Amino acid sequence: MQNDVPFHVPSFRIRSLAAPELRKDPLLDHWVIVSTDRLSRALELHASTTVTPLDACPFCGGNEQLTTAALLEIPDGLGGWRVRVVPNLYPAVRSDVPAQAWNDGWHEGARAVGRHEVIVEYPQHETAFANLKADQVAEVLRAYCERLQAAKKDARLAFAMVFKNSGADAGASLEHVHSQILILPQIPRTVQEELEGAKRHFDATGRCFFCDWWRIEKGTGVRQLFDTPRFSVFLPYAGRFPCEMCILPKEHQSHFEDSNDEARRELGEVLRTALRKLKRGLNDPPYNYLLHTAPLRAEQMPHYHWHLEVLPRLTGVAGFEWGTGYFVNPVPPEQAAAYLRGVEA
Amino acid sequence: MQNDVPFHVPSFRIRSLAAPELRKDPLLDHWVIVSTDRLSRALELHASTTVTPLDACPFCGGNEQLTTAALLEIPDGLGGWRVRVVPNLYPAVRSDVPAQAWNDGWHEGARAVGRHEVIVEYPQHETAFANLKADQVAEVLRAYCERLQAAKKDARLAFAMVFKNSGADAGASLEHVHSQILILPQIPRTVQEELEGAKRHFDATGRCFFCDWWRIEKGTGVRQLFDTPRFSVFLPYAGRFPCEMCILPKEHQSHFEDSNDEARRELGEVLRTALRKLKRGLNDPPYNYLLHTAPLRAEQMPHYHWHLEVLPRLTGVAGFEWGTGYFVNPVPPEQAAAYLRGVEA
Repeated sequence: MQNDVPFHVPSFRIRSLAAPELRKDPLLDHWVIVSTDRLSRALELHASTTVTPLDACPFCGGNEQLTTAALLEIPDGLGGWRVRVVPNLYPAVRSDVPAQAWNDGWHEGARAVGRHEVIVEYPQHETAFANLKADQVAEVLRAYCERLQAAKKDARLAFAMVFKNSGADAGASLEHVHSQILILPQIPRTVQEELEGAKRHFDATGRCFFCDWWRIEKGTGVRQLFDTPRFSVFLPYAGRFPCEMCILPKEHQSHFEDSNDEARRELGEVLRTALRKLKRGLNDPPYNYLLHTAPLRAEQMPHYHWHLEVLPRLTGVAGFEWGTGYFVNPVPPEQAAAYLRGVEA
Repeated sequence: MQNDVPFHVPSFRIRSLAAPELRKDPLLDHWVIVSTDRLSRALELHASTTVTPLDACPFCGGNEQLTTAALLEIPDGLGGWRVRVVPNLYPAVRSDVPAQAWNDGWHEGARAVGRHEVIVEYPQHETAFANLKADQVAEVLRAYCERLQAAKKDARLAFAMVFKNSGADAGASLEHVHSQILILPQIPRTVQEELEGAKRHFDATGRCFFCDWWRIEKGTGVRQLFDTPRFSVFLPYAGRFPCEMCILPKEHQSHFEDSNDEARRELGEVLRTALRKLKRGLNDPPYNYLLHTAPLRAEQMPHYHWHLEVLPRLTGVAGFEWGTGYFVNPVPPEQAAAYLRGVEA
């Protein structure tokens, strides 16, 4: 934790909070995390992603002393590691603070108890995830599963968001390939809305929305990118971002952490192919990907189905989007799918 | 309208849609606008805001021939104009297309009928709105009112979002001071949620949420920035962005377009002061501001109250925010308020 850190200008100095806070908007049912631990990172944002000299990159093999102790290392069989998981140095939430909550009828909040972890995806200083081999991507997916399983053992935790920010314009502050897991004591409203939408579809039809979805996309074909025995990749009809993609397992499964080695090996190939099409077809764009999976404590859900969402960041988000929640996508997904189908991976 | 415009790379060419489309996400109750008319603008985004030579700036007085005919001009009494409203050259929605809707049980959508207007806020090539005099800001606010009144006459339209993008990182593609109005045939879900939250508070307490809010903030004082006879300016408890501000009229009023000259003159001074504190205190940050006001066709609402939201854009939005809807704010609003109170306007 830092003490008294300047924000944006030298004269604006921020005192550290005792712990990050979850604060509820008293009008809307949404929450915000206030975390002074994120300050130093926020300062780095307006530099573009740092090109770190190899001997100072905290994620390079050999520089392990620059991070705190690993939460997980997948060994390479030669005394080193293939994938390494460490606590985020600038955490949005913390596991080492006692729980505390407040509510005076207007100001409702709680200490933001949780975990914020970084998955270092390769020991060498590679900057493009799409350049990794498929079996390395599969090892990264295995690390996600193991950390999700570990999170289940902490009764305070409710939901884990696995995500990648790639490129400075997508929020990455270090270029060495990595992704993150942020584990929260609540199920966020956005996730709750997805679960509720899926439940509505299930109650109305007796079927899983996502099991229907890939079949519909495969049927019309216009937004389909490619498929494999176990996975379908397509561009959503109402995608918010140009070339937004959905990667969906064909077989119903609500919890990503229940996926097996075989499925993860195939998904490693699928994810790599999708990202290589983006990289080659759109000149290496910044992007985010997000894992949508069931809450940690949920039983098997017949109505919910894990999936990956890939969001290229080629358009900005401005006043209109903040005010209305409507995104403006200048690229019809059907045309994006047709173009990307023709791009070699 | 353009035909066959490249997006991001020369080989990815997009055919124009006959009209922009509103598309409903089949799982979540949210809509997206797909507008190929926005393509040329999207291409400009990754250049930073263009520093336009004066003789090519379409917003400068004397260059009126570079835009289509004005929808409104507030005259300066000397044969010129003080504020000028024109149609957006890259519209997200259009008023000149016949309505059309579709729904096959999965893919629901409609042509995006609406208006997208640009308010040119000053005839000279000024780039900082905070540099305008308060009476000029008041004229801009008057233009907002007049365009909202005009929108009410088109029975197809339901909701108008008035907003400003200032600075390239906040989505501005031209530096000459301007704001926008995007008028939609639907009430967006984000707006609906705010209306519902306000209704819940009213039903539970018999009072307007916003009438309570400014009194609570004035009472505790910790997040208060300043107030005037008619307005209160404070930083929301659960602000999503560092130094996010709310500007609220103290007297209850649901529709911004019902505000009178006197109130707008005072608001011109208030808005200018708030933005000058941001500009001076945070080294001229990019920002958005949004007008939250009642839907066009709504009667007077005892539970809803218009207000302005100012969002400085000093932190990025990345995978975690997209996936969960939780924003991470590294600056406690109480500390931001204390700092900004001390910044001279």
